[in-house]
Amino acid sequence: MQLQNIIQEKERLFFGSEVPEVYETDLFVKGVAKVHAVVLPETTEEVVALVHYANEKELSIIARGGGTGVAGAQVPITGNELIIDVHLMNHILELDEETMTLSLEPGVQLQEIQEFVESKGYFYPPDPGSKHSTIGGNVATNAGGMRAVKYGTTRDYIRELEIVLPTGEVVNLGSLNIKNSSGYDLKDLFIGSEGTLGITTKIKLKILPLPKYKQSVLLAFDTLAEATDGVLTILKSGIGPTALEMFEKSTIEYSEKFSGYKLQSQKGHAYVLMTIDSNDEGAISNKVETLNSILETKVLEIVPLTTPEEEDKVWKLRDNILVALMEFTEYEMLDEVVPINRFAEMIEYTKELQEIHGLSVINFGHAGDGNIHTVLMKENLDEETWQAKREALLDDLYQKVAELGGRPSAEHGIGIIKKSYFEKMSDNIEIELMKKIKNAIDPNNRLNPGKLF
Amino acid sequence: MQLQNIIQEKERLFFGSEVPEVYETDLFVKGVAKVHAVVLPETTEEVVALVHYANEKELSIIARGGGTGVAGAQVPITGNELIIDVHLMNHILELDEETMTLSLEPGVQLQEIQEFVESKGYFYPPDPGSKHSTIGGNVATNAGGMRAVKYGTTRDYIRELEIVLPTGEVVNLGSLNIKNSSGYDLKDLFIGSEGTLGITTKIKLKILPLPKYKQSVLLAFDTLAEATDGVLTILKSGIGPTALEMFEKSTIEYSEKFSGYKLQSQKGHAYVLMTIDSNDEGAISNKVETLNSILETKVLEIVPLTTPEEEDKVWKLRDNILVALMEFTEYEMLDEVVPINRFAEMIEYTKELQEIHGLSVINFGHAGDGNIHTVLMKENLDEETWQAKREALLDDLYQKVAELGGRPSAEHGIGIIKKSYFEKMSDNIEIELMKKIKNAIDPNNRLNPGKLF
Ligand SMILES: Cc1cc2nc3c(=O)[nH]c(=O)nc-3n(C[C@H](O)[C@H](O)[C@H](O)COP(=O)(O)OP(=O)(O)OC[C@H]3O[C@@H](n4cnc5c(N)ncnc54)[C@H](O)[C@@H]3O)c2cc1C
Ligand SMILES: Cc1cc2nc3c(=O)[nH]c(=O)nc-3n(C[C@H](O)[C@H](O)[C@H](O)COP(=O)(O)OP(=O)(O)OC[C@H]3O[C@@H](n4cnc5c(N)ncnc54)[C@H](O)[C@@H]3O)c2cc1C
Repeated sequence: MQLQNIIQEKERLFFGSEVPEVYETDLFVKGVAKVHAVVLPETTEEVVALVHYANEKELSIIARGGGTGVAGAQVPITGNELIIDVHLMNHILELDEETMTLSLEPGVQLQEIQEFVESKGYFYPPDPGSKHSTIGGNVATNAGGMRAVKYGTTRDYIRELEIVLPTGEVVNLGSLNIKNSSGYDLKDLFIGSEGTLGITTKIKLKILPLPKYKQSVLLAFDTLAEATDGVLTILKSGIGPTALEMFEKSTIEYSEKFSGYKLQSQKGHAYVLMTIDSNDEGAISNKVETLNSILETKVLEIVPLTTPEEEDKVWKLRDNILVALMEFTEYEMLDEVVPINRFAEMIEYTKELQEIHGLSVINFGHAGDGNIHTVLMKENLDEETWQAKREALLDDLYQKVAELGGRPSAEHGIGIIKKSYFEKMSDNIEIELMKKIKNAIDPNNRLNPGKLF
Repeated sequence: MQLQNIIQEKERLFFGSEVPEVYETDLFVKGVAKVHAVVLPETTEEVVALVHYANEKELSIIARGGGTGVAGAQVPITGNELIIDVHLMNHILELDEETMTLSLEPGVQLQEIQEFVESKGYFYPPDPGSKHSTIGGNVATNAGGMRAVKYGTTRDYIRELEIVLPTGEVVNLGSLNIKNSSGYDLKDLFIGSEGTLGITTKIKLKILPLPKYKQSVLLAFDTLAEATDGVLTILKSGIGPTALEMFEKSTIEYSEKFSGYKLQSQKGHAYVLMTIDSNDEGAISNKVETLNSILETKVLEIVPLTTPEEEDKVWKLRDNILVALMEFTEYEMLDEVVPINRFAEMIEYTKELQEIHGLSVINFGHAGDGNIHTVLMKENLDEETWQAKREALLDDLYQKVAELGGRPSAEHGIGIIKKSYFEKMSDNIEIELMKKIKNAIDPNNRLNPGKLF
């Protein structure tokens, strides 16, 4: 069979040297090989035909969505890879208001989903920073984001998946049923599997009613330890924050310089930006009151952000951290996660590492779920020194993550850049179980080989 | 090796004819064979030794907790079975208030967990009717219960599992981390696997702060269809009910006769019993107000249950349905689940089946999640007629469940009694995937063979 027989339009098929460079890299990771070919299917049937083709020609397959992944999970590493880029499968198929579900093709962008459901009075909570990522990619990495502390991650919103298996068979996993104890939970096995078990070709999302009221509050603390202590107090209070973001003063300063305005509090060294939502206006003010009383002795300042403009200003500062940083230096962003009570300890340890390795380190993160974005900055270092220091620091850092009971990735996935740490930090028996499952479902290692393990 | 070398106390080891009868049956299902032996380990090490023993002697293994399962998943079917009853591994190991987790041995009873956490100001939401079931059994069946509509099922509260694999290896799955995108989600694969993949020997549960206020409300509707319509309206309103139970007048009448008092509303033919909880007292009354306005044209009567005594009375009626029924007839209880918008259609179809097959059928259920407990009643039928009618009715019933996109089991599991329906109602490719995974993890089919598929 010929690829041209499956994908007839020229603009949906690229071979060898015609392959656009974008397919060889992600934001942080460059592939180490050329791509055999890139195809852009428009239907499940085409995906099936492509999988059969790859089996016949013994090609590896990389599924690709928006290409915003930052773990190198979608870059070529052998030169034998057929990239199946599903971003043209981008139709919103059906909003079912009775079951409160939304059916989508995998290439629909997160931003479009959010705008669509909000225009209808609904709410899709997962909210990673990368609004141009696709829902298929979000499923493959179990994307998280700002609202995970209250609403969970992508996993929690997947009702059904249509998946093309490595055999070319199509299977539907999950159902519209809210509860289920009928056999193994296969759906959750495919979620977060980084394209190594199947290609997602259809997704049915659970959506929620849009909360009627929300408000953000900025909390200033003297030290990181006090901020973390405050976070634990908030989590235990039952206030149920929607977002609970923490950043150091030294982190937000980049964003302040970039944005040209200052954070609404300049006290202390650590900030927590919190949002609460509710359908009950009174509940919001009660929660803010509770906040005042439980944090009284711990916080330097509580700044309620009472207008949408004020709220917007501070969230923009938070969202701009990464973009701002690009203006100042090359960097590497991690997404380690530790149990919530070890958050401060972990961040403090990154500061020790900064001293030990002579590499600047800043932190921000989703404090509500123990997910830290530690950022290593290249600044004026030459490439070789940067790589050497980076690697030495990462070895120490991930060892500490493991000691604290943490995991290497909270929301970006393992891809290729965290593979060695993932293996080192995991129980051997667990990795062997994963490999057995991979081998049971994909015995020819057709899908995204060399990723994850 | 000898079993006596592993389990030395006589009272923890039963052979052949000494095996108490209780091990051969559950509430509804009798095993079709004798048990080879029953052992009651007290430690993970003993469980490991027992698994090695079973491998050496080529015995099958059935893990058992409280024995309250109702799908026949823990009964012997080949005569070659070693039952590993873990109910003596019943220690509460640690309450960690910082990570809000509770570590347990698998044999701790649900009731004990609930009492323990509530005494400390915490809350463990999963709430199946069987308070003497064990947490290990709850994990193995992904038990649900009354509060699943707001709080989810057992699955949603499992942070970590220690599992003895069919090889005798011990693996820890999951972690204290709230978010994780580091490899395949093995933990969820083991949850709900009915003892066919591993034996759970330790569990770390997530617990929540205990909500400060709650109130129940009884809603009376003219017809089942109107009640279901009301349920959908409530779910879409954002009120966020904790429990949303529906029952027919003809169902609750058994409980009224048994209890000797009447439901607080006698209007209409279908009732919805709803609970709301909140940390904000004002929010509760606001929610009740919202309820009044959104249901105004649909409901016959709204009865707020404003005292604990009133609340208790109606919940007792609900909880007593099954016990009450035993006084009147032998019966079989199902736990089918359908998408929430097909709930009324499904229940109405059971009424048609009652006419067609001449078998009395009543319904109650967790309306908030589409989970129906249809009950087939033997009444005065002789055994042969009962079995014949039962089977004919079940064939029709499960076919309808499948047509509506439902699943055979919402919370009790497949065990042996739903096996044939499960296979018939599932995509062949999905079952094959499950079998591949079972075979990858348990190639000698050592654990609970003949259950599930
Ligand atoms: C600026 C920035 C901010 C970010 N912020 C966050 C954040 O807050 N939270 C967070 O969780 N992530 C964040 N990310 C990471 C990123 O957005 C996610 O990894 C995203 O889910 C990837 O989606 P994608 O469509 O771009 O997938 P790709 O990058 O195209 O692919 C990523 C992985 O998914 C697989 N894949 C893609 N589509 C399919 C499919 N249809 N079937 C099977 N496998 C598929 C690929 O094989 C690959 O393994 C951020 C990234 C950037 C660049
Ligand atoms: C009156 C009554 C009401 C009920 N109401 C509900 C309800 O509302 N919601 C609901 O979900 N269920 C309900 N159930 C069903 C029942 O309580 C559950 O199935 C329960 O989870 C079983 O727990 P158990 O400890 O009794 O397990 P068992 O009955 O001993 O075993 C059940 C299954 O779990 C496996 N298992 C047990 N322990 C382990 C272990 N440590 N490791 C591996 N596998 C193990 C067994 O092999 C078997 O497959 C009800 C049952 C009764 C009798």
